[in-house]
Amino acid sequence: MDRNLVYVFDVAGADAARLDDEPTVRRCLDAVVARAGLTPVGADAAHRFTPQGLSVAVILAESHVAVHTWPERGTAYVTLTTCRRPAGADFTTATSAALADVLGAARVDVRALD
Amino acid sequence: MDRNLVYVFDVAGADAARLDDEPTVRRCLDAVVARAGLTPVGADAAHRFTPQGLSVAVILAESHVAVHTWPERGTAYVTLTTCRRPAGADFTTATSAALADVLGAARVDVRALD
Repeated sequence: MDRNLVYVFDVAGADAARLDDEPTVRRCLDAVVARAGLTPVGADAAHRFTPQGLSVAVILAESHVAVHTWPERGTAYVTLTTCRRPAGADFTTATSAALADVLGAARVDVRALD
Repeated sequence: MDRNLVYVFDVAGADAARLDDEPTVRRCLDAVVARAGLTPVGADAAHRFTPQGLSVAVILAESHVAVHTWPERGTAYVTLTTCRRPAGADFTTATSAALADVLGAARVDVRALD
């Protein structure tokens, strides 16, 4: 069968206020989708945790992307599941840099499953 | 930082009609969540592709679970992303059997990222 790919971006040392702001958190997903050259289909789910923290998942033509944040720890992770390999050769590096910029993060580690 | 876990269940040789039926496909997610001992928070996203195929993502207290189906190929994959290790020691085996049963599948392979 076709093999899907999973990328996990582990974000640490990020700004707590940004991690709890839904428009900012959604920009993380936009950053991943744009750099991977993928296509949202217009269906998404979002949840705000009490007292803080957000989860957002967005369905793509090629599978889905999601983000989960822990403002109290300054951490988040973003996952991309895709049945099509991201377009750019520098996808993981460029995406990590974009996520660090959006969230004011000290560190972004990447893991991949393929 | 805390390490999240990702499980991917690759389903093959499944029944095309079941793969294109949203209630059946949602039962796949219920099967994963129940066996992992996790908690949906009531937010989900679903998309029906043309001419066939479904994607559903459900936000959990512990992150998210999603399924993507290709009825024309008899394939699907289910992903679980979680910040808490699934409860049962036989989680992957029991979940694979449950998915095969729900989808009438010949084969379910498991991959994990931790």
